[in-house]
Amino acid sequence: MTSATYDVLAIGNAIVDILAHTNDEFLGAQGMSKGSMSLIDEARAAAIYGAMGPAIEISGGSAANTIVGAADFGARAAFVGKVKNDQLGAVFSHDIRAAKVAFETRAASDGPATACCYILVTPDGERTMNTYLGAAQNLHPDDIDPAQIAASSVTYLEGYLWDPKDAKDAFVKAASAAHAAGRSVALTLSDAFCVDRYRGEFLDLMRKRTVDIVFANEAELTSLYETKDFDGALAQFRKDVVTGVVTRSEKGCVVVSKDEVGAVPSFPVEKVVDTTGAGDLFASGFLFGVVRGFPMKKSAQLGALAAAEVIQHLGARPQTSLRTLAQAKGLLD
Amino acid sequence: MTSATYDVLAIGNAIVDILAHTNDEFLGAQGMSKGSMSLIDEARAAAIYGAMGPAIEISGGSAANTIVGAADFGARAAFVGKVKNDQLGAVFSHDIRAAKVAFETRAASDGPATACCYILVTPDGERTMNTYLGAAQNLHPDDIDPAQIAASSVTYLEGYLWDPKDAKDAFVKAASAAHAAGRSVALTLSDAFCVDRYRGEFLDLMRKRTVDIVFANEAELTSLYETKDFDGALAQFRKDVVTGVVTRSEKGCVVVSKDEVGAVPSFPVEKVVDTTGAGDLFASGFLFGVVRGFPMKKSAQLGALAAAEVIQHLGARPQTSLRTLAQAKGLLD
Repeated sequence: MTSATYDVLAIGNAIVDILAHTNDEFLGAQGMSKGSMSLIDEARAAAIYGAMGPAIEISGGSAANTIVGAADFGARAAFVGKVKNDQLGAVFSHDIRAAKVAFETRAASDGPATACCYILVTPDGERTMNTYLGAAQNLHPDDIDPAQIAASSVTYLEGYLWDPKDAKDAFVKAASAAHAAGRSVALTLSDAFCVDRYRGEFLDLMRKRTVDIVFANEAELTSLYETKDFDGALAQFRKDVVTGVVTRSEKGCVVVSKDEVGAVPSFPVEKVVDTTGAGDLFASGFLFGVVRGFPMKKSAQLGALAAAEVIQHLGARPQTSLRTLAQAKGLLD
Repeated sequence: MTSATYDVLAIGNAIVDILAHTNDEFLGAQGMSKGSMSLIDEARAAAIYGAMGPAIEISGGSAANTIVGAADFGARAAFVGKVKNDQLGAVFSHDIRAAKVAFETRAASDGPATACCYILVTPDGERTMNTYLGAAQNLHPDDIDPAQIAASSVTYLEGYLWDPKDAKDAFVKAASAAHAAGRSVALTLSDAFCVDRYRGEFLDLMRKRTVDIVFANEAELTSLYETKDFDGALAQFRKDVVTGVVTRSEKGCVVVSKDEVGAVPSFPVEKVVDTTGAGDLFASGFLFGVVRGFPMKKSAQLGALAAAEVIQHLGARPQTSLRTLAQAKGLLD
């Protein structure tokens, strides 16, 4: 196995977030389920945007947030995802490249607009997401360069991508290329509703070792095994994955593998402003630790630290140097 | 004079701000003068964007920020300015309407893109602006509806607009329509470099009473009278305007008229995050006080309060209800 060009390569939906503060009444009136992610069409996107308050735009996308965080820790990073060559596509492309992430996927010149996600943040810091996938869902196997995947220590995939046919094929092509080169594949289950739609397929991906490292939160884990018994679900998860990471918000996380089970606490935060990106940034720190060969506990601490940073401000991209933060906590030299 | 439909109508450049944190070295390397506003062309815009870090997008524009703040205090508000019908134009239009400001100016269907302003914020909170005017500079006298102006108690204009020929004509048309209907006209001098380019014309606008209320900061005032003597400049200013308001950052402001000169202190803030919009939001509070018939001192206090809110976070639009803030301070019922 030759030495890697990239530590982590992430494949996911290329999305610009459109964030606004709101209240529970608005979510109720719009029929939104607080804390969830819903896929919406263009008409619904227009209706939500017309009804919501003044917003700010920040680049987002789950795996894109993760890779930006990993790069911020110091990982050599690349991203694969689809924008259109419109203004929001230029915003997404600029921001990810400005974060020192290689991003070469060809932008679509026609078809739907660059994806956007209307994120409504309630006073408790919880975010409710409505995603118009637009150009992002047209990610195609041809957008996957096997040589680039082979040159990446870990290829990281988001479960959200497991929906459009072409994107699924791209996902499988990338996982095959990674394993053919002796590299690792990581997956986040992304969302409990997402798990509910693709439970069998996600379990297949895990049990057939299409993926090695799997990230889930509590809701996703219990949805995966259709149980309310967290410990039971965790025991099954441990059998199904090489490495499993379950994030539990303020309760910290649990990392499982064949040989070990370890819990790591969350970092205390003064005030939760916006939980958008908490899971994404946890994955940033954890993956950075993995590629540096750190023990699982230290990797999880880096994840917890990055998650704590991102929930203390609006938006899912770090606003403080994660590397500097980790150095201040004695987690990095 | 019939009763007004709008308390304040603002005319200005319709701009989306693209904000990034930076440092003094970057400003130096880019040849930018810290704290200033430079007009840039498309090529320079692309070069700056390519070099600057990850950014966030927030609707901006000086007079647009002011009118959003005035609406937030409770003013019936309208805005006139030019976007293109592109994605950033949709962002600007959404945000100003979502702030309950009437905005009916027809978007351009061809020509340059919606205006954007690359705002680089240094660790001291100072902002350095680079504005690509794009569609905004094509505001035309035909975009001014004299009936709408006549139905507005105060028409507020930004000095930045005093540059393209058509926009100047639009400006004069609006001022004439306002005065013909017995309404007031307010102007902000906008920027010291702007004053330097149009010193004679601005003095003419004041001395010929094309404008009644004039806002300036210290740098703009001393540039206007080509002196370093603040008190001397203030004395001349008092002769040249009906009402003059000079903002002095943390030193507060001075309001002058034929009959009175009064200083009002600034509101203390914990930490200055980003000074973008400080002057704009001062004008929001002051104009709201004027249209409510408040004494100058109270109007200036509302201005100071709004300025204090906006400099404590990124972006030039309020993130907290200014009306609620003012009520908490006992300035509004």
